[in-house]
Amino acid sequence: MSRLAVINPNMSVGFTDKIRDQAQRTIYPHNQVIALNPDFGPDSIEGYYDEAFASVGLLSVIRTLDPTGIDGYVVACFDDTGVDAARCLTHAPVMGLCEGAIRFAQALAGRYAIVTPMHVSVRPLEHLVRKYGADRDCVVRAAGVRTLDFEGENAAMAYDALYQRAQKSLHDDGAEAIVLGCAGMTDIADRLKSDLGVPVIDGVQAAIKMVEGLAELKLATSKHSTYGTPPAKSYHGMFDGFAPAAL
Amino acid sequence: MSRLAVINPNMSVGFTDKIRDQAQRTIYPHNQVIALNPDFGPDSIEGYYDEAFASVGLLSVIRTLDPTGIDGYVVACFDDTGVDAARCLTHAPVMGLCEGAIRFAQALAGRYAIVTPMHVSVRPLEHLVRKYGADRDCVVRAAGVRTLDFEGENAAMAYDALYQRAQKSLHDDGAEAIVLGCAGMTDIADRLKSDLGVPVIDGVQAAIKMVEGLAELKLATSKHSTYGTPPAKSYHGMFDGFAPAAL
Amino acid sequence: MSRLAVINPNMSVGFTDKIRDQAQRTIYPHNQVIALNPDFGPDSIEGYYDEAFASVGLLSVIRTLDPTGIDGYVVACFDDTGVDAARCLTHAPVMGLCEGAIRFAQALAGRYAIVTPMHVSVRPLEHLVRKYGADRDCVVRAAGVRTLDFEGENAAMAYDALYQRAQKSLHDDGAEAIVLGCAGMTDIADRLKSDLGVPVIDGVQAAIKMVEGLAELKLATSKHSTYGTPPAKSYHGMFDGFAPAAL
Amino acid sequence: MSRLAVINPNMSVGFTDKIRDQAQRTIYPHNQVIALNPDFGPDSIEGYYDEAFASVGLLSVIRTLDPTGIDGYVVACFDDTGVDAARCLTHAPVMGLCEGAIRFAQALAGRYAIVTPMHVSVRPLEHLVRKYGADRDCVVRAAGVRTLDFEGENAAMAYDALYQRAQKSLHDDGAEAIVLGCAGMTDIADRLKSDLGVPVIDGVQAAIKMVEGLAELKLATSKHSTYGTPPAKSYHGMFDGFAPAAL
Amino acid sequence: MSRLAVINPNMSVGFTDKIRDQAQRTIYPHNQVIALNPDFGPDSIEGYYDEAFASVGLLSVIRTLDPTGIDGYVVACFDDTGVDAARCLTHAPVMGLCEGAIRFAQALAGRYAIVTPMHVSVRPLEHLVRKYGADRDCVVRAAGVRTLDFEGENAAMAYDALYQRAQKSLHDDGAEAIVLGCAGMTDIADRLKSDLGVPVIDGVQAAIKMVEGLAELKLATSKHSTYGTPPAKSYHGMFDGFAPAAL
Amino acid sequence: MSRLAVINPNMSVGFTDKIRDQAQRTIYPHNQVIALNPDFGPDSIEGYYDEAFASVGLLSVIRTLDPTGIDGYVVACFDDTGVDAARCLTHAPVMGLCEGAIRFAQALAGRYAIVTPMHVSVRPLEHLVRKYGADRDCVVRAAGVRTLDFEGENAAMAYDALYQRAQKSLHDDGAEAIVLGCAGMTDIADRLKSDLGVPVIDGVQAAIKMVEGLAELKLATSKHSTYGTPPAKSYHGMFDGFAPAAL
Repeated sequence: MSRLAVINPNMSVGFTDKIRDQAQRTIYPHNQVIALNPDFGPDSIEGYYDEAFASVGLLSVIRTLDPTGIDGYVVACFDDTGVDAARCLTHAPVMGLCEGAIRFAQALAGRYAIVTPMHVSVRPLEHLVRKYGADRDCVVRAAGVRTLDFEGENAAMAYDALYQRAQKSLHDDGAEAIVLGCAGMTDIADRLKSDLGVPVIDGVQAAIKMVEGLAELKLATSKHSTYGTPPAKSYHGMFDGFAPAAL
Repeated sequence: MSRLAVINPNMSVGFTDKIRDQAQRTIYPHNQVIALNPDFGPDSIEGYYDEAFASVGLLSVIRTLDPTGIDGYVVACFDDTGVDAARCLTHAPVMGLCEGAIRFAQALAGRYAIVTPMHVSVRPLEHLVRKYGADRDCVVRAAGVRTLDFEGENAAMAYDALYQRAQKSLHDDGAEAIVLGCAGMTDIADRLKSDLGVPVIDGVQAAIKMVEGLAELKLATSKHSTYGTPPAKSYHGMFDGFAPAAL
Repeated sequence: MSRLAVINPNMSVGFTDKIRDQAQRTIYPHNQVIALNPDFGPDSIEGYYDEAFASVGLLSVIRTLDPTGIDGYVVACFDDTGVDAARCLTHAPVMGLCEGAIRFAQALAGRYAIVTPMHVSVRPLEHLVRKYGADRDCVVRAAGVRTLDFEGENAAMAYDALYQRAQKSLHDDGAEAIVLGCAGMTDIADRLKSDLGVPVIDGVQAAIKMVEGLAELKLATSKHSTYGTPPAKSYHGMFDGFAPAAL
Repeated sequence: MSRLAVINPNMSVGFTDKIRDQAQRTIYPHNQVIALNPDFGPDSIEGYYDEAFASVGLLSVIRTLDPTGIDGYVVACFDDTGVDAARCLTHAPVMGLCEGAIRFAQALAGRYAIVTPMHVSVRPLEHLVRKYGADRDCVVRAAGVRTLDFEGENAAMAYDALYQRAQKSLHDDGAEAIVLGCAGMTDIADRLKSDLGVPVIDGVQAAIKMVEGLAELKLATSKHSTYGTPPAKSYHGMFDGFAPAAL
Repeated sequence: MSRLAVINPNMSVGFTDKIRDQAQRTIYPHNQVIALNPDFGPDSIEGYYDEAFASVGLLSVIRTLDPTGIDGYVVACFDDTGVDAARCLTHAPVMGLCEGAIRFAQALAGRYAIVTPMHVSVRPLEHLVRKYGADRDCVVRAAGVRTLDFEGENAAMAYDALYQRAQKSLHDDGAEAIVLGCAGMTDIADRLKSDLGVPVIDGVQAAIKMVEGLAELKLATSKHSTYGTPPAKSYHGMFDGFAPAAL
Repeated sequence: MSRLAVINPNMSVGFTDKIRDQAQRTIYPHNQVIALNPDFGPDSIEGYYDEAFASVGLLSVIRTLDPTGIDGYVVACFDDTGVDAARCLTHAPVMGLCEGAIRFAQALAGRYAIVTPMHVSVRPLEHLVRKYGADRDCVVRAAGVRTLDFEGENAAMAYDALYQRAQKSLHDDGAEAIVLGCAGMTDIADRLKSDLGVPVIDGVQAAIKMVEGLAELKLATSKHSTYGTPPAKSYHGMFDGFAPAAL
């Protein structure tokens, strides 16, 4: 039995609830999952500035959870905010939505498109895709809506914009599968797959399956160099309690 | 419940047995796995020539199995022989050992080494690593032994050669994790991990977990272009029965 | 004097005849060329599945021909099916149409387009182009016709579709030369060159000239590693006669 | 006249003093420079975990300084911690030490080496080098000392280790120039240049000159997409005061 | 105080005058700049053929100037004609307009476009961009006018074509900043910036600031290998006086 | 019948004689070849500075020869000096030794090494290899001798140094074939092949065979963009006679 934590690094409880629902539907019955968000930080993550603060929130959650025995973490944000730092902090495997979704897409299609809500995210996601070695086969497109539009009264409009952009990518970009480029889209994968007729990959589900697999095999993050445990030192001011010395 | 097939594309029953043992240890209890090999083809796969014949054997097995309801396939050869053709043949997800192991390694380490038995495999594996977009972080090294040395009386010597080469890669190449570059090494991952003190990834296990995840999520290979169903046509001579028309 | 074999790896005699005509027009008078196809396999090669079977047919022809003294081989398929395996099997140089055509195009133009019949071939050809290190300067486009359309009553329509797609590539992609992306187009290079006013490269001709050059210089495939002779072993069942032991 | 801020994102006052001295020696007389560090955060930055906290400190300093009229920022850390987020926060140009040093090195040498103190920084710096498009011509090496060794009683030993590693890189890696891979080395560039006989580039100096140039030309960060101003939203808990709404 | 030379490698005195004006406006008051062109060679540089001759003119100017004490050179042509050879000839830093402009653009924008006058320059500039490691973030576009159109009666038309092409690049290519792809555009950066609302980078200014910075820091070209001083030897005929023996 | 010109771009008559001998041995009997050098320029080509002058000499020869009816040009220098400019000047195909040799090596081996005389050439050749898209499979090494050492009393020593370096590359770099990195080595390919037991590719021979093939197929350089005919304009001073207006 593995115990997983799915962490939404922003403060949107609505997002966290949606992600928890998806996580509980997704996880193997013999495993356990908790979904939560930090108790400080931004309401949503849109670009590099929000990411900087959300990373600290993410790390605060992991610091609290790790001693309770977590076998794997999913960072439930498509920007993979703070994943590298998190891998330094814990021995348990850590996976972001973008990395998880790309790994599944690569197995299913020769070319695929990430469709994200806002144009402002296109370049940061392209940099991420490049970091993961996937830029030759993956394009990043924006639906032109806000992340929160996928909830509440704008939901129908947002879905339609997403559908139109994905459809266009199948035709113009040669995409053969669609990756949902935001945690907030996690509940529409099935509908979009049905409407488009190609595989649609939800990062929440993909990352959970990847981490469940890693945890099941007792595969831990290498502490040999890149993700080595942070050397002990003093932290000051409002980050006083985050010093690696406490680890 | 998913039903998986792990196909050893060569004729070595010893290999198939070892792979079956590992597959049964690895698979989630709620899933089922069968492990088998074709009834024609080479005794082992060492280089491009053997691969050409093993691919046909692999496809023959999938043609037989697919109508029985298989939810995912693992091609249990580290050269990922015939994986592209197999993805055209079936809707179920297909994963080779190299691709599966690399995806897990990428999540655990900044740099890693594949250690394969024979020098002759280094360049073909490097081409594969490049195809998967992993060449910037992955090196391929050879232990200088034969694949079959990992069975029988040479096993201790083979293990030692593997250990020495992996150790050297940690120091000289900056590797932080080791990927076992042959299906025949599937039973020594734990021992090597213990001896080296870094994560050791077995492709059989990694590929099974990836395919279980894809199958659980009902994610199928895209038929949109790259892996489209082969168009119906005539095949002649000894391949008469393999015509896509029969699909 | 060199003796070349141009092997059409599929069973289409019409294709083989067309290729033979082109080969005989192309070869230097002091050399000899034979053109043939295997006596088993698919009627045409469209995608990875057909390739797997055609590769075996190709190797069967080389096994038969090699002892008769062949100085160079052309694999007359634009997917370069089985070329790597063929290079392991024989000491004589082996060249596929795609590799040959790209090498000539690179010498004549800063950017060029491969125009192939079917959309389904675009991604496999893009992978091939990338393998050859040419992806920065080469685009792959599809005319939207079947390969066999270039013969018989559809020939005029097929030519027109090819011409339109090539024309569009000159304008939209910045292509400065056109590569014919199928062996079946081998007889229309001159007409297309005249109609477009840019160089048009036929892979059959390019590959023959490359192999004639290699053969004339007595340059053989290196057996040092990547294309090393397959180690002797047993093959079973319908591939019994293909065991490398017989080499 | 331009007014520059050089921000050491960690809490080491010794480092800040050293950087301030170098900045004042480096800046054109008609410009002004201030050097400072945040009032919270880690004592030094060694790896991804420290970076996450130091980024917030960096942003806090910029939020305070920006309304006072700053024409350009240097992030005085070789990991370029928080540079992307900082570019979103201000219109003034922002440059990290690694980017600045690489741009100067590229103009002076065909190949060059970054020599950094600790082995644990090699992989993160390699990722940064790759992000800057410099990985084909740049190698990253570690001297095997701690960052703080360049101050106090270990300074002679640290210099010697740096010298030996740089020397080895000239011979073994074909490096033609050396980049100092840590802000704490900023006072030894001249000595090392003299001892090695090749250009030695200090990131503090290079980044200052780049930013002075950008500021002089009134070139501001593009707000068009990647570095667009963060959209207004609520932040909670200890980050309450950092909400982009306040911008 | 540094003494800079800005060399227009072609014979257009109008261009040289315009570049001199920009150089004098750009340089720091404590530095000196001279702007000049060779006394032989082509009237303008359009493509590889003109470049070959302009390179010799450039080198002739540097040979004359270098003994007078020049601290840095700008090659005032966007093709960076002869920059590599010039770096061999002098110890002073040498920068072309393309390299300088790209380094500034990379600090200001996630993606940017070079807009050059003629279509014929697109491919050579793309090769240059690739050499500088910037091809993933930079596109090259042509306004479809002649270089000299930016002077005299066609100037309004040329500006309009440039503006239209840049505008299109912002929308279609996702460019966030514009690089002026010709020395002859050096006087319109401010106007275009104002009209487009994004940063516009003029290579003359960028290269001057880069070289001023390098010169101020006493950073010289490495003579270790790539840009080593040419070994002494005889030159004959009309190049008799250019022999490296005279250096 | 094709008429080829092999142009040694430097003034070494000894080199030109050696190249002529090789060219006459290499060319098909039905073709004709002339070998010559310019009547001005450097005695040898070692680095970027010499290249700039040799390019003009090369172009002067082509301007003289082209009206006499040349069907293809070989630039007999391994730096491929002036090849791009030459392709603008003539419709006939133009090939340098490096490009020709690499194309043949790519067909024969998975990895190969260029062995050049001087260390100073390593970086320029690496840039060339990268331009040709071959950097993933090709390493460049230096034997540590002067180019002219391959003639006269040092010849035995030079051969030995070359042999040792090539041998080392087979073992340490995984090279499977050797490319001779200098026109002056053109007469030792057979001996080295015999001594090493792997293919050895001489660029003079390879480039001649490539150009003979292109010429035989009536394939001309595309004038569509990259290699477009230089637009007419005035040239001044000692280059007065080279103006494209005269073409």
